[in-house]
Amino acid sequence: MNRETKLDRLQVVLVRTRNPLNIGAAARAMSNFGFPNLRVVKPYDAAYREARSAVGAAHVLAAAQEFPTVAEAVADCTLVVGTSAMRDREAQHAVRTLEDGATLIRQEMKRGRVALLFGSEKVGLSTSDLSHCHFITRIPTREEHGSMNLGQAVAVCLYGVARQSSQSLPKAAKKLGHLNRAGSKKTSANAGELERLTELLIDVLRASGYLKPRASATTDEKVRRMLRRFHVSEEDAQVLLGMLRQVKWKMK
Amino acid sequence: MNRETKLDRLQVVLVRTRNPLNIGAAARAMSNFGFPNLRVVKPYDAAYREARSAVGAAHVLAAAQEFPTVAEAVADCTLVVGTSAMRDREAQHAVRTLEDGATLIRQEMKRGRVALLFGSEKVGLSTSDLSHCHFITRIPTREEHGSMNLGQAVAVCLYGVARQSSQSLPKAAKKLGHLNRAGSKKTSANAGELERLTELLIDVLRASGYLKPRASATTDEKVRRMLRRFHVSEEDAQVLLGMLRQVKWKMK
Repeated sequence: MNRETKLDRLQVVLVRTRNPLNIGAAARAMSNFGFPNLRVVKPYDAAYREARSAVGAAHVLAAAQEFPTVAEAVADCTLVVGTSAMRDREAQHAVRTLEDGATLIRQEMKRGRVALLFGSEKVGLSTSDLSHCHFITRIPTREEHGSMNLGQAVAVCLYGVARQSSQSLPKAAKKLGHLNRAGSKKTSANAGELERLTELLIDVLRASGYLKPRASATTDEKVRRMLRRFHVSEEDAQVLLGMLRQVKWKMK
Repeated sequence: MNRETKLDRLQVVLVRTRNPLNIGAAARAMSNFGFPNLRVVKPYDAAYREARSAVGAAHVLAAAQEFPTVAEAVADCTLVVGTSAMRDREAQHAVRTLEDGATLIRQEMKRGRVALLFGSEKVGLSTSDLSHCHFITRIPTREEHGSMNLGQAVAVCLYGVARQSSQSLPKAAKKLGHLNRAGSKKTSANAGELERLTELLIDVLRASGYLKPRASATTDEKVRRMLRRFHVSEEDAQVLLGMLRQVKWKMK
């Protein structure tokens, strides 16, 4: 497998970006580090393709794909990673250093597509956006001024993913490969499959009375986050879907 | 020696920067990563202190020092490092990866002041500027589009210097421990809890007709192995037990 093949497995996803110049800056960093695939979710300015600071990044912008929701933008990805400057966010997600996060991202890119999400300049990713993520990665900025410029944050994260491994990394990655995916070498379920599983589980929980007939978004997000924590494989996702279908049928 | 003391030993030196916005972007990245000392050599625009994109970086810009020459700007530094996007420059200097360069910079910062030089947007550092440098460090951008935006290059280099070193074994071991539980810092469910979960799930699957009334040991083991693959936390195990109890009650 050559290098190009792997780099195109990373999907940089910009969610509700306000400033087209930042989309341009993100595209330029992507071009610098060789990541061709940009996806945008509800950009504030439809003219994002004209972002002017994207010196040499026209090919990235021309090929960018637009999606109405985060769920659709990440549906074909087997690992979804959020970025956040927050230190004090309630620990609903594992928060990894960029170094550790990048190691896991590189590893998953050998097998499937990975989505790396960046939120809007003002408020970052919402709790709902983050509920689609397997973990959050954090650039080690200081507490007093943690919030980075979007273009700079994208550049730093892509450097983190692209940079040459140090001597210790291959070993660490190998160990992580052994440990991290719960001892399984199986392909992970992609985000679309996980979302189907989430919806079916919510259906069943509603039918059983465990959730109220109209569960709140918060409850749905709790269920979504829990299923992501399990790192369900493609095969197990099929098994779980089969179980839940049968349980749902039986209850009705 | 505390962290602040060391970080103020790095002098970020911008040489003949043309665009004041880039000085602002550099200052913002410096503020993000906690490096307070900015030096500028012959900036093209005297109004650089007003750079507008430097959100939260006013203190860095206010304290910036201006010098007429590179020689004066680096005079008090014991290590001077140039940055360059060039691959084909005549090998008059050692060129190090950012990772290796950053390691040497961090080392020297324990003892004395280090200057990290960035050239102008158009032409980078001149041969004359580089003659003040002990070595050149290069961000691993791709050959076809090597030249980074100045603010992004500064951010990536400062991240490289600031990030936690992954070298030492105890730290690596700690990281592996941290990463191994599939993205959760939470306490894992113990074997007893997992087994209760397994039994309850099997009950539910039998009641639903998904498993035959007397499922074989093989089937039970499949369910048991699947649940172990999920590395369920203690907290999630309680949630799942609650869900399954309700579903079981509803079906009967």
